[in-house]
Amino acid sequence: MKYNQYSYIPTAKPQILDELNQLGFPIEPMSDKRFLRAFIEKAHPQQEDKDRVLLDLLATENTDALTFFQSDQALTREIVLTLALQLLDFIPYVDFKPSELDDFLKKIAFPITYKGNTQAMSLMLHYKEQHMLEFLYQLLATRTKNGMLLIDKLVSQGLLPVSNRHHYFNGKSLATFDTKDVIREVVYVETPVDTDKDGERDLVKVQILRPHTVFPLPAILTASPYHAGVNDLASDQHLHKMEATLAVKEPHTIAPKEAGKLLLPPQNKPNLPVSNATETFTFTSTYRLNDYLLARGFASLYVSGIGTAGSTGLMTSGDKAHIEGYKAVIDWLNGRAIAYTSHKKDKQVVASWASGLVATTGISYLGTMSTALATTGVDGLKVIIAEAGISSWYDYYRENGLVCSPGGYPGEDLDSLAAFTYSRDLVGGDYLKNHDKHQAFLGEMTKQIDRTSGDYNDFWHERNYRKNASHIKADVVYVHGLQDWNVKPSHVYRIFKALPKTIQKHLFLHQGDHVYINNWQSLDFKESMNALLSQKLLNIKSDFHLPNVIWQANHQEETWESLDDFGGRKPLIFPLDLSKSDSVFKNAYPKEQFKRYSKDFKAFKQNLFEGKLKENSLLIDLPILEEMKINGPISLTLKVRASHNKGLLSCQILDQGQKKQHLSLPRIIEPRIIDNGRNFAIEDLKELPFKEVPQRVLTKGFLNLQNREGLLSISQVEPDEWMTLSFELQPTVYQLQKGDTLRVLLYTTDFEHTIRDNTDYALAIDLSQSYLQVPVD
Amino acid sequence: MKYNQYSYIPTAKPQILDELNQLGFPIEPMSDKRFLRAFIEKAHPQQEDKDRVLLDLLATENTDALTFFQSDQALTREIVLTLALQLLDFIPYVDFKPSELDDFLKKIAFPITYKGNTQAMSLMLHYKEQHMLEFLYQLLATRTKNGMLLIDKLVSQGLLPVSNRHHYFNGKSLATFDTKDVIREVVYVETPVDTDKDGERDLVKVQILRPHTVFPLPAILTASPYHAGVNDLASDQHLHKMEATLAVKEPHTIAPKEAGKLLLPPQNKPNLPVSNATETFTFTSTYRLNDYLLARGFASLYVSGIGTAGSTGLMTSGDKAHIEGYKAVIDWLNGRAIAYTSHKKDKQVVASWASGLVATTGISYLGTMSTALATTGVDGLKVIIAEAGISSWYDYYRENGLVCSPGGYPGEDLDSLAAFTYSRDLVGGDYLKNHDKHQAFLGEMTKQIDRTSGDYNDFWHERNYRKNASHIKADVVYVHGLQDWNVKPSHVYRIFKALPKTIQKHLFLHQGDHVYINNWQSLDFKESMNALLSQKLLNIKSDFHLPNVIWQANHQEETWESLDDFGGRKPLIFPLDLSKSDSVFKNAYPKEQFKRYSKDFKAFKQNLFEGKLKENSLLIDLPILEEMKINGPISLTLKVRASHNKGLLSCQILDQGQKKQHLSLPRIIEPRIIDNGRNFAIEDLKELPFKEVPQRVLTKGFLNLQNREGLLSISQVEPDEWMTLSFELQPTVYQLQKGDTLRVLLYTTDFEHTIRDNTDYALAIDLSQSYLQVPVD
Repeated sequence: MKYNQYSYIPTAKPQILDELNQLGFPIEPMSDKRFLRAFIEKAHPQQEDKDRVLLDLLATENTDALTFFQSDQALTREIVLTLALQLLDFIPYVDFKPSELDDFLKKIAFPITYKGNTQAMSLMLHYKEQHMLEFLYQLLATRTKNGMLLIDKLVSQGLLPVSNRHHYFNGKSLATFDTKDVIREVVYVETPVDTDKDGERDLVKVQILRPHTVFPLPAILTASPYHAGVNDLASDQHLHKMEATLAVKEPHTIAPKEAGKLLLPPQNKPNLPVSNATETFTFTSTYRLNDYLLARGFASLYVSGIGTAGSTGLMTSGDKAHIEGYKAVIDWLNGRAIAYTSHKKDKQVVASWASGLVATTGISYLGTMSTALATTGVDGLKVIIAEAGISSWYDYYRENGLVCSPGGYPGEDLDSLAAFTYSRDLVGGDYLKNHDKHQAFLGEMTKQIDRTSGDYNDFWHERNYRKNASHIKADVVYVHGLQDWNVKPSHVYRIFKALPKTIQKHLFLHQGDHVYINNWQSLDFKESMNALLSQKLLNIKSDFHLPNVIWQANHQEETWESLDDFGGRKPLIFPLDLSKSDSVFKNAYPKEQFKRYSKDFKAFKQNLFEGKLKENSLLIDLPILEEMKINGPISLTLKVRASHNKGLLSCQILDQGQKKQHLSLPRIIEPRIIDNGRNFAIEDLKELPFKEVPQRVLTKGFLNLQNREGLLSISQVEPDEWMTLSFELQPTVYQLQKGDTLRVLLYTTDFEHTIRDNTDYALAIDLSQSYLQVPVD
Repeated sequence: MKYNQYSYIPTAKPQILDELNQLGFPIEPMSDKRFLRAFIEKAHPQQEDKDRVLLDLLATENTDALTFFQSDQALTREIVLTLALQLLDFIPYVDFKPSELDDFLKKIAFPITYKGNTQAMSLMLHYKEQHMLEFLYQLLATRTKNGMLLIDKLVSQGLLPVSNRHHYFNGKSLATFDTKDVIREVVYVETPVDTDKDGERDLVKVQILRPHTVFPLPAILTASPYHAGVNDLASDQHLHKMEATLAVKEPHTIAPKEAGKLLLPPQNKPNLPVSNATETFTFTSTYRLNDYLLARGFASLYVSGIGTAGSTGLMTSGDKAHIEGYKAVIDWLNGRAIAYTSHKKDKQVVASWASGLVATTGISYLGTMSTALATTGVDGLKVIIAEAGISSWYDYYRENGLVCSPGGYPGEDLDSLAAFTYSRDLVGGDYLKNHDKHQAFLGEMTKQIDRTSGDYNDFWHERNYRKNASHIKADVVYVHGLQDWNVKPSHVYRIFKALPKTIQKHLFLHQGDHVYINNWQSLDFKESMNALLSQKLLNIKSDFHLPNVIWQANHQEETWESLDDFGGRKPLIFPLDLSKSDSVFKNAYPKEQFKRYSKDFKAFKQNLFEGKLKENSLLIDLPILEEMKINGPISLTLKVRASHNKGLLSCQILDQGQKKQHLSLPRIIEPRIIDNGRNFAIEDLKELPFKEVPQRVLTKGFLNLQNREGLLSISQVEPDEWMTLSFELQPTVYQLQKGDTLRVLLYTTDFEHTIRDNTDYALAIDLSQSYLQVPVD
């Protein structure tokens, strides 16, 4: 456990007094010792027997708190901190030894110091010293060992009554809303598109959870094509074989065209009676960050979108129409679109409860939809919190003119994802009427995705959100894992670079895979989002400032650092091997080996990393002679020669060598310990393990040699002629130490990612003319 | 998915009419077709637009339900069943093809047939045909694909209002209690023991969750020494090294003595003011079965017991005093003991809300405490539901005169478990005052457990609940996994055999490890418990009968069968190898190998099973010539000779050969889909996977050769002299097929279970004089 708190907002003493007073803490002048006792007693709202509360706390190595407070013994800094740690759920003799207090405080980077006058009155308004009052204020705004702010723990225990009104503490909204009596309603929002061409504008089903209030609420919108259910069977039927022959493409230049007119003409709002929603639900799969915010006075909206169960339309998978389906919900919240009580469309529902201000949340496809929504520039969308989102679908299923599967999902493509998410087929009656139409549409999509060339085209261009980044008006919070080989780090790197200067942008780069970070012990992500959304959606004034880039250090446990930007300033050149001018590796594998790797790409990776593929790869170990922090995409320049008129090139770069690294999936530290409200949406406390491993992948990249001059320029590969090419690998931020070894692996087929073409050809590299450009901070 | 329903209670038509009427279903005479439509509409309480409900359902391959009901088309059996399946969440074209309906019904063993007259009125009181009314009644009492009875799903959706009164359907209580507004209170019950000898009777903290009612409620009590927290650090400090020298014991006979006087003399109840509880809590770790019952009108009580945080006393770990701590809570519920609002003991709390009738729940240590509590014969305890419980602590940490660790926990012993569960040390103030006292007590325990001899003694005798089985008055439900090598199956076998004839006894034997079964798809365990507890604790009359033994078949997926008993009638003799009269294996391993196996017992097991330990084990493959069902403990008779004056013998018997078997840990089939109330205690739907594996362990057993004449009789091992010995291995129920192979492995050290003594000696077996006795049904 180590503190990295970003959500704490330094606060002036008058406001501290006011906020503590509003919570019912005593603020009249008294000694620090008396004040501390009163604070501790107040901080145990569930026990009437306060003597017992104090008896249960250890004040010194020899004294419990009751004995101490009843004695004449002077209050010391050690006693204050020993008691404070216990309020934060640290356990004496298990988590820390009272005799080694300072070592422990240092180890956990405890963010609060106590310099109070232990004798005198503490309410003199000295700003320079941290008196008891300020100490305890910050303590309340500090996380316990178990992943909740102390104030959140106390509210969970009933320190404040449920009021269904916002109550702020240190710039963040508290859990004062009644999650036990939440309005759960379903409405059907009309979109301006008719994707299934049935003559009716597509409707999207919206599930709303909101507290009972008499004042307008902001909304947290989660746009998830998975939300209404998924169809594994249909998805499996649409998986592609990765074994294929790499096509030889005609040289040409690609000039993608923008998609044509999409929106139906605006229509007058029908003159329908206004009604409350007439459909409800009991349980829906919710996102913990939304739950946390629901308890704090933000409505939760879940929208599965067009082409999903309960909605109409086709599953167009990330195009403009798809996004219009979600945008319409924000329009409805702002009175610009209509919603009905049901598909019958005989009554309308008005979002009279909504302030119109919206933030989005969600990971992966959901994060993707957040970015896509933001590029519409829709009014009302104030913040997107996009976790591990795709910024261009081409980059998700293709790379540099190659079919390239997301890590762990060989054979998936956008058509299989469309089949997976077209949940209308899960509704028996709907299947009858619309299954065939969607199958025909899927058939078209299978052509448009063009697995033969692997090239960028109009279809992918419409699903590239970066080209519209300049339209973004919302502030953005991106979260991405540097070991995410599913949605790779280039997605966030490229959109982050493309964002307009006019908006506030933030990026959390963690050391994990494709995972959420909101329940990690080492970072107050959730609370930081609370502070941000309280500013942006609830319009409270606070001095909350979130750094541009918050990076989880790779070389230390539970350590997060602020960076100025993602992408370093100066490129360092690393020649690959000045002594070798012609190193050759083959594409083809013996049949059995090819079959085995096709079945088990993990075996392939292991052999590759261990240097066992001597014929099929080049392995170059580069010693690191001084400490440096890679920041951004390493670029690879190669002089290469193919024995054939085609070829693909794969590269991975490892930090090779046994050392402690972050594993990519968080583990549970303490199950079911975080309360997101008052016994509401309880969740596990997690953290990435930090363990000895033999190596860590820093980056990878894949290239069709025919696309070496740029994604949009297809050129010939002349057999046996040298070519020089450069391309960018996945970006990262990674601290290298002196003595580390960069292992560069060059090979053709990557059994996890690329298509598997076993054609008999070889690539030669002139290593003496090849190098890495490594961007460093 | 396959149906195995034990909770359905056949019900007479008048009662069916009454129960459906109480739920608000129409029961006036009408055609089956009209009745079915009305039923479906009523069965969608959350949607006002009933046309949409019907449009979304498929009636035939060409027709949705609305079109069908609006047409003249006759109702057919196929339509009834197609719609019924959809009400149970089965999805057309994903789960089943409407054109292959009967195949699907057969595959899932659908428990309901529809033989109704599709034209005529359905309310004639014919009992022999299953008319629509009876069909739909049973449908409501049948599980959906997602692990809830249809009626429970509908109540979760609001079919019935929250009333805080019991409402029964088909002999089971429905979720009509308000779990959103539950009373959560803490009381401190006084026990009749003073284990920490501080002159005060030990107090145990009780956390109570109960709905607001004006009538008395039964209680579900979970006695869990883990509940108040655990101390990993202290436990690790008390782990034992498994590497040791097997002691040579003096021959003698053990005559265990009963523990002496324990209870303090009864005292008059103090004349204290009666108060409501003054301490509350927000969240506590709950057990899903309790949560399910809480929503159905059973209070939940969690008691961590003496020697745990919030309570007083020492952690005496399973002795009589420990049990008295839990028993006192039942006494309090029945007005026979006193509870205080706090340790101050200045106010008492009366359980005026309690009917005094109690059932216990919980797995492992919790299940152990259930059995122990039952042996007290305490009045009020009506049912124990004990999952994977220990019935004698000796058998948990020892076997036949040997130290023998529970599977997966080498080095653990009762003293380390005591250190683990003594959670008073987690309370800083309590640590100060009582840590040293408990350490001294632990030191004593470390002696009493006697790892040197590994023998049964007075200490273990006090923790053997089987010797008091005759005192049990409660009905019992045991649940145990046949692949549970932590709490091994002998625990349940032996207590089950020892139970008095006067009580009802039930046993669920599943094919898993040390796991809960209440959220499995293939078995309605939870609902069966509801039916049982509604009978026993709520005193409703029903014809519910649960078989004695319900066994999960090993050779078929999702199949449960009723058996008469655990333990077969006739023993079959399997000679080990009539041709070999002197087969030798060594005890000692080369140093490196010994070290490696000590570090990684899984590597040892794998090598053992694969027959790679040629010098250190005997491997005998016995062909199975005809189908048979093993039921009970296999007994092993050996003619054996040791080269030393001591020796230990291990045996495992496998079903050797690649085939589909149940893996031992359930996997999630559908996350967060089971609602235990109304959006309350949502849980995952699970099932044991059924996959190809190379072998399956049927049984194992361990013996100190000095204990060959019986656990209580220590005799000499004469070097190089033949001995004949017999001992029972772990019991199982296992169906063997013709052509299967029983692999018998004989060896000395088991690196998972036994102590690891690398002394240089050998055992010889005269296989021609050795045999298995296999009990078969």
